[in-house]
Amino acid sequence: MGGAIQEIENIVKGWRFSRNALELKSSIIREILKDSSKPGVINFGGGLPAPDLFPLEKIKEACINVIDKYGTQALQYSLTSGTKQMLSLITSRLKQQDIDISAECIQVTAGAQQALDILGRVFLDPKSVVLTETPTYLGALQAFSFYGVKFISVKTDDEGIIPEDVENKMKEYKPRFIYVVSNFQNPTGRTISLKRREKLVELSRKYGCPVIDDNPYGEVRFTGKHVPSLKTIGKECVIQLGTFSKLISPGLRIGWIASEPNVQKIIERMKQACDLHTNTFTQFVISEFASAGHLEPHIELIKKVYGIRRNFMIKMLKEYFGDDVSWTEPEGGLFLWLKLPKTINATELLPKAIKAGVAYVPGKFFFSEKPDDSTLRLNFCNATEENIREGVKRLAKVIASAN
Amino acid sequence: MGGAIQEIENIVKGWRFSRNALELKSSIIREILKDSSKPGVINFGGGLPAPDLFPLEKIKEACINVIDKYGTQALQYSLTSGTKQMLSLITSRLKQQDIDISAECIQVTAGAQQALDILGRVFLDPKSVVLTETPTYLGALQAFSFYGVKFISVKTDDEGIIPEDVENKMKEYKPRFIYVVSNFQNPTGRTISLKRREKLVELSRKYGCPVIDDNPYGEVRFTGKHVPSLKTIGKECVIQLGTFSKLISPGLRIGWIASEPNVQKIIERMKQACDLHTNTFTQFVISEFASAGHLEPHIELIKKVYGIRRNFMIKMLKEYFGDDVSWTEPEGGLFLWLKLPKTINATELLPKAIKAGVAYVPGKFFFSEKPDDSTLRLNFCNATEENIREGVKRLAKVIASAN
Repeated sequence: MGGAIQEIENIVKGWRFSRNALELKSSIIREILKDSSKPGVINFGGGLPAPDLFPLEKIKEACINVIDKYGTQALQYSLTSGTKQMLSLITSRLKQQDIDISAECIQVTAGAQQALDILGRVFLDPKSVVLTETPTYLGALQAFSFYGVKFISVKTDDEGIIPEDVENKMKEYKPRFIYVVSNFQNPTGRTISLKRREKLVELSRKYGCPVIDDNPYGEVRFTGKHVPSLKTIGKECVIQLGTFSKLISPGLRIGWIASEPNVQKIIERMKQACDLHTNTFTQFVISEFASAGHLEPHIELIKKVYGIRRNFMIKMLKEYFGDDVSWTEPEGGLFLWLKLPKTINATELLPKAIKAGVAYVPGKFFFSEKPDDSTLRLNFCNATEENIREGVKRLAKVIASAN
Repeated sequence: MGGAIQEIENIVKGWRFSRNALELKSSIIREILKDSSKPGVINFGGGLPAPDLFPLEKIKEACINVIDKYGTQALQYSLTSGTKQMLSLITSRLKQQDIDISAECIQVTAGAQQALDILGRVFLDPKSVVLTETPTYLGALQAFSFYGVKFISVKTDDEGIIPEDVENKMKEYKPRFIYVVSNFQNPTGRTISLKRREKLVELSRKYGCPVIDDNPYGEVRFTGKHVPSLKTIGKECVIQLGTFSKLISPGLRIGWIASEPNVQKIIERMKQACDLHTNTFTQFVISEFASAGHLEPHIELIKKVYGIRRNFMIKMLKEYFGDDVSWTEPEGGLFLWLKLPKTINATELLPKAIKAGVAYVPGKFFFSEKPDDSTLRLNFCNATEENIREGVKRLAKVIASAN
């Protein structure tokens, strides 16, 4: 029983909370990261996209046009699935990505995090099994945990999940779904190869196990060749999640779920019980921003700038780290993943790193089963070259002195 | 097992859904109301505030100022509990209402509907008992239903819940909480009297049963005397919900939960798993609208206009209805409640009413136990005088011909 609960019971005698509330533990990752935003600390820890690229003036213009063009409609309650304009924006963009889909397949959500929670509602009961990659996205673990599930993690290598292990675990555990981040994964930056995608779809069909492909970064590729998406390959057996958080702004909170019409009927009802519908106004603002032609050039800009920062961080890692540290070289997204010598514990090292003026997220929080604590995640998109150089230098020094 | 599920299983063999998904029934109220928005139908059915009062130009101005003043901060991820400006707006407004509360007690939500869902997460397990008024708000029944609860409804009269019945049911069922809409209730328009509020707080303390007071309309009082709020009277034993949906615009999706610091710690963690945080941008826009001094005059305008429409609807009811139909005369809010002769079934009557050009919500959907189907809800805030006259006339005719 957590501390918070005991304190409450001293205040309000007799209140009884849900099993989930009673099982809440204090958030270790929050405790650990609370000093990372101190002045002077170069923070590679956050999951934030680069605010210096937010298209402020164009968003302002879109707000004005939305009020002038759509008036009260933009401020009223709206349909649970999404506004007409937003559904049409999403389907037309997915079509450009070879995903042939109609508006009846789409649910607009308050960012991709809400999409995860809603899919939990649709698929999960206590003790249901969820397959995840090793490691996997921390926010998904948090969202699905609420439903009292058991996580089973699937072995991975540089090409992503290993099909033999997926098959063994689908057979043994009969999971409700397999959750993957197929492109430039959070936390590792890895992308699942085409061959593995095809195999995953085959296994999904064979075992009746849906694939949930969380795809917040898929369009932020700055090098290498596009890999056909799981939804393009797998169609009805893949549920794809998307968001404008990394393409425009996370504060506008617009994401979506792309499934099939009959699955969407259930998703829509769950969404309605959660919060009726997604923010009408910011759906209109993003649609307007896109229909004014600002979206595609803005994505090009993001790709260019993030690509430069990623290249520079890799250059610095090569310059300051020895052979005993290795890292991924992602072709897109926001993150890369470091492997330290086995003797170094990244969680224990963090306070020293913060003292030395650099922060990261210890890798262990991204594991649903046995954690590898000699790993860590770095966000390369959100710092100047000067800070990347200085931050990597500090990190290298802290690691060297711990070794 | 619902129709939707069977169809899915024909498409994607082997997918297994949550117990909740399997138990979804098609939404009867949606089916029933789907013709109510046809051209020519005067719709008293919706729960919508009047869009003709939305402060379009002032919202536009607020958007511009938010971007100019706060820049990237207004488009970035923000804290789970809420933005500093929004928390401060909420606490200062609550203080004006004699609720002395700090920012650590507040959770900003995507409208009051999400507040209901989050409180479900905090308090409810399968088979938990929830006490409700008779009748009660439909959206709360939907939100809490997800948690597999048992609803027990408490007897009411014109002064609201009847304390003796509350006490009996708190004793017998040990409910996780009692849910009330204390001011200008949806659907009846009734307000709980001061004496009953004091008694409810006393019982809440005696039986350790939290009071959830859903208060979307409390500030929209156009006649009669202010009644001190349950939160003012009950302090730590009352959780109050509020929203800007009825005060400014529902499409901006900003509501809140006011509890106590230690309860808020749990609420915040639940919110984080749902969707990380509420829309940053529209939190800023509403704060800016308020700090520019637009909020209080706007609420005065709403009260004035809604008051006129309510008076006019009551005048029309008196003019067109016979003695066998009675109604509530709410001192605020959006809704009033009609009682028809016992022989008339309001659900069966609705298709005829829609054919005659008027729509309402049958009362039975607002009952958590035995429904009274000779009742119905009318929204008086959202129609012109001409439409109120014509709509009431049509309704009276349909009812007379059914009697």
